[in-house]
Amino acid sequence: MPKKFVIIGGDAAGMSAASKIRRMQPEAEMIVFEKGDYISFAACGIPYWISGVIDDGSKLQVLTPEIAKEKRNIDVRILHEVTKIDSMNNRVTVTNLETSEQYEESYDALLIATGARAAIPPIPGIENDGVFTLRSLADGHLIKDYLAKNKIKHATIIGGGYIGLEMAETYRHLNIAVTMVELLDQIAPTFDKDILVKVTEHIVENGVDLRLDTRVNGIDKTARLLVKTSAGDIPTDMVIVSTGVRPNSELAGEAGISLGKSGAITINSNMQTSISNIYAAGDCAEYKHLVLEEDIWIPLAPSANKGGRIAGENMAGQLTQFPGILGTAVVKVFDYTIAQTGLTEKQAEQSSKYGEISTTMITGGSRAHYYPGSTPITIKMVVEKSSKRLLGAQIIGKADVAKRVDVLATAITARMTVEEIGLLDLTYAPPVAPVYDPIHVAANVANK
Amino acid sequence: MPKKFVIIGGDAAGMSAASKIRRMQPEAEMIVFEKGDYISFAACGIPYWISGVIDDGSKLQVLTPEIAKEKRNIDVRILHEVTKIDSMNNRVTVTNLETSEQYEESYDALLIATGARAAIPPIPGIENDGVFTLRSLADGHLIKDYLAKNKIKHATIIGGGYIGLEMAETYRHLNIAVTMVELLDQIAPTFDKDILVKVTEHIVENGVDLRLDTRVNGIDKTARLLVKTSAGDIPTDMVIVSTGVRPNSELAGEAGISLGKSGAITINSNMQTSISNIYAAGDCAEYKHLVLEEDIWIPLAPSANKGGRIAGENMAGQLTQFPGILGTAVVKVFDYTIAQTGLTEKQAEQSSKYGEISTTMITGGSRAHYYPGSTPITIKMVVEKSSKRLLGAQIIGKADVAKRVDVLATAITARMTVEEIGLLDLTYAPPVAPVYDPIHVAANVANK
Repeated sequence: MPKKFVIIGGDAAGMSAASKIRRMQPEAEMIVFEKGDYISFAACGIPYWISGVIDDGSKLQVLTPEIAKEKRNIDVRILHEVTKIDSMNNRVTVTNLETSEQYEESYDALLIATGARAAIPPIPGIENDGVFTLRSLADGHLIKDYLAKNKIKHATIIGGGYIGLEMAETYRHLNIAVTMVELLDQIAPTFDKDILVKVTEHIVENGVDLRLDTRVNGIDKTARLLVKTSAGDIPTDMVIVSTGVRPNSELAGEAGISLGKSGAITINSNMQTSISNIYAAGDCAEYKHLVLEEDIWIPLAPSANKGGRIAGENMAGQLTQFPGILGTAVVKVFDYTIAQTGLTEKQAEQSSKYGEISTTMITGGSRAHYYPGSTPITIKMVVEKSSKRLLGAQIIGKADVAKRVDVLATAITARMTVEEIGLLDLTYAPPVAPVYDPIHVAANVANK
Repeated sequence: MPKKFVIIGGDAAGMSAASKIRRMQPEAEMIVFEKGDYISFAACGIPYWISGVIDDGSKLQVLTPEIAKEKRNIDVRILHEVTKIDSMNNRVTVTNLETSEQYEESYDALLIATGARAAIPPIPGIENDGVFTLRSLADGHLIKDYLAKNKIKHATIIGGGYIGLEMAETYRHLNIAVTMVELLDQIAPTFDKDILVKVTEHIVENGVDLRLDTRVNGIDKTARLLVKTSAGDIPTDMVIVSTGVRPNSELAGEAGISLGKSGAITINSNMQTSISNIYAAGDCAEYKHLVLEEDIWIPLAPSANKGGRIAGENMAGQLTQFPGILGTAVVKVFDYTIAQTGLTEKQAEQSSKYGEISTTMITGGSRAHYYPGSTPITIKMVVEKSSKRLLGAQIIGKADVAKRVDVLATAITARMTVEEIGLLDLTYAPPVAPVYDPIHVAANVANK
C-alpha cells in the first residue's frame, strides 16, 4: 500500500509524526509544510535563552530542514503555508511564501499539526512598539533584540500563567524591575489558589511587583510605555502579553472538520478528525482527559510529541490508541517548582462525573528530617470521597517536586485510591526521601 | 471488646503498631517490650551520623519511651526481653534485664516485631577488638568511640552492600583510606551487574580500594589488624563487617510459629502468623512480593513502618490488608544515587512465574539537553516479552534518580506495560525534565 502523506506544521507534533511514518514506510511519499522559517523548536526554552541561562539559542533547535532531509529523509518545505484543505478530493492548496506561487498537493492521509498562537487580548494600544507576545522563535528574537537595543529598566508582564512567571524570573535574572498584572486573584490560574500562598510570597520577595485582581485597560506610548490598569498607571519600558494561547484550527474548521467547544480540533483515540483520513495532533487539537473522560484542550509539549507519534503510527497503518492526558504540568518559579496533574479542586467540583470531593493539603520534608538539606514539600490531593480515588494533585516546593507529581500522575492513570497510594513501596534513604514520603503522608491523611 | 495487646520490639514496626492501636483503642491495655535501651531509632541515618553529616545523633531518635508514654500513652518497657511465647495460654515470659527479674504477661493479641540483626560470618578473628558490625545505635556508638580514641588511617569494609557502600562514603568523608572486600564480582548485589559500571568506577575514583571476587579468610590482630584475603593481606586499623542481616525469628520459631524459607516469619496479608492472634511485622517477617507473587524477605524500613501500622489496625479490629512490597530501595554512593524496584534481570530469569524476559538499558538526561545542569540518568527495565509488562527497573545517576524509580514502582504496582508507561503524562519543563523523560525513552525502546 504505497501512500502519500501530507503534514501541515513542522513543529513537535508534525515532525514526530513525519519521523514515525518515515521509519515505518521508508519508501512512501511524504511532505511537511511549515509556514514559518524553522521547524522542531523547543519553545519552552525561550525564556531561559532570553535570560542567558541557555547561552546559545541554536541549542533549542531540535531539527533543521536540512538535517530532517539528510538524516531522516523527510521533505520539509518551510515558508510554505497550506491555505485550504479540499477533503472531498484529498488535496491541499499551498502557498510558497517566498515566491507567492500557489500549487496543489494531493494526499492519501493528512495530518493537521498547526499548533497554537499567543492570544491577543483586545487592549487598546497593544500594537505599540515594545509590546510583545512570546510563543515562537521569532518572538524570542524580537524580545532579545529589543532588550539589546534599548535601555530596559522596567518591564510589565500582563498575565500570571506559566509564560508570565518564567518571564518574571528572566527579567529579574537580567536585573530588570518587573510588574506583573493579573486579572484574576491568583497567579498560575491552572492551580488552586490555596496551594500558591508560599510561591506567591516568593515571587514578591524576588522583587516582582505583583498586581492581582487588576485589569489592563490600555497601553499608551509617549517617551515610555504606559500600562493603564484598573489600579493605576504603570510607566514601563517593555510589555510582555502572556494571556494564554488559541488553537490554530481555522484551516480545519473551514474544511468542515469538527471542532470542540474550546475551538480546537476534535479527534478520536486514533488521532483521526471527523474526516477519517485527516488526523490532527498537538496544540491545535483537543485530547481526551483521563480523569474527566471528556475532550479537553490543554496545549503542552509532551502531548504534542506523543500525539504526533501516535498519529504517525495510525497514518502509516499501525492502529495505536492514544490513551489521553492528565494536564500534567510543571513550572519553575525562581527557587520554587510548582507542578500539577489531574483535576484541581475547582475542576473536580465542577465535574458532574464525580460525587462529593474532599481535599487534603500537607507539608512534609523532601528528605529525612534529620538529614541536612531537607526542604518542605506541600502536596494537595483532590479525592472523590466515596471511592477514595485520587483525581488530582498539586505540589509546590524547592526541590524534588516534579517527579513526585509524576508518581501521582502514574497513580491517577492507574485509577488508584489514596489507600493504595499510601501503601506504595517507594524509595527511602535519609539523603533522598523520608521513610514516609510526603506522598504517603498526604495519601494517608486523605484516606482518613 | 476490651483487649490486651503485647508487642515485642520497640522499633519501627512495633511502635507503628502500638501508635495505631492506641489511636483506635484509647482505653486498651498495651505493653511494648524492648530488649535494648532505646526505641524508634532511624538506623539508616547512622553512617551519616558517624561521618558528621548529621551533627547530632539525638536527631535520629524518633521517639523515646518517655515521649511515647506522655504523648501517645504507650507503656514501653526497655531492657525487657521476651524469652518465651506460650501461644496455648496466650502468655509471654519476660526478663527485666536490669534486675534479672522474670515474669509472665498475658495477651489477647501479640505482635512479634523483633527485627533483624547483623549477620556474623564465620571468619576466624572476627571477634577481635576493632572489628564492628553496624546495625544498632549501640554499634554506631562503638564505632564513633573507636574513631575518636584511635588514630584510624585505614579501614576495611567486608561486604559491598548498602551499609558497606554508605560506610565507604563515611570513611572517605572523614579522610580515612578504605579498602572494600566483596566476595562477589560486583558491589550492590541486589542490582544487576551491568548497570553498575559507572558507579563502580565512581567509588574507585573516590579513593576506595575495591577488591571484588575476594574472600576474607581471617582477621589477625597484632599491633594493627590484618585482614587476610584470597588476594593477599590487608593491614588496617578497623574493620566493618557488612555482610547482610538475619531475621530475629528464633523466639517465634520456638513457639511453633511457621517460618518461611528465608528463616523469617510467615504472615498473611492481615499480618497474622500461623497462630491467628499472633501477628508479625518488620524485619523479622517475610512479605508478599507484588511481582513474584510469593513471600520474600527484604528487610527495609518502609515496609517495617507500613507493616507495623497495618498489623496494629488488624489487631485493633479493623481488617486491613497489606498489599505487599516491590523491594524498592535506594542508596547514595558518593555523588551517585542507585535505586531499584521490582525484579532484577537475574530474579526475573529465575522466576517461573514469567515467560521470556527482555531487558533495555538507556541513558537520557535529567533535564532538557539544552538546559544547564542536565546529568545522565541510566535506566534498566526488565520486561516480560509476551505481555510487555514491566517487572522491574534499576536507575543510576547523579540527580533525580529515586523519584523516577518511584514512578516505575507505581507503574509496576499497577501492572502497567511498557507501552502504557511510554504514554504516561509526566511533567515537562526545561529546568526539570526533558520532553521525553528517560522513563519514556526506556519504555519506548523496551516496547519495540
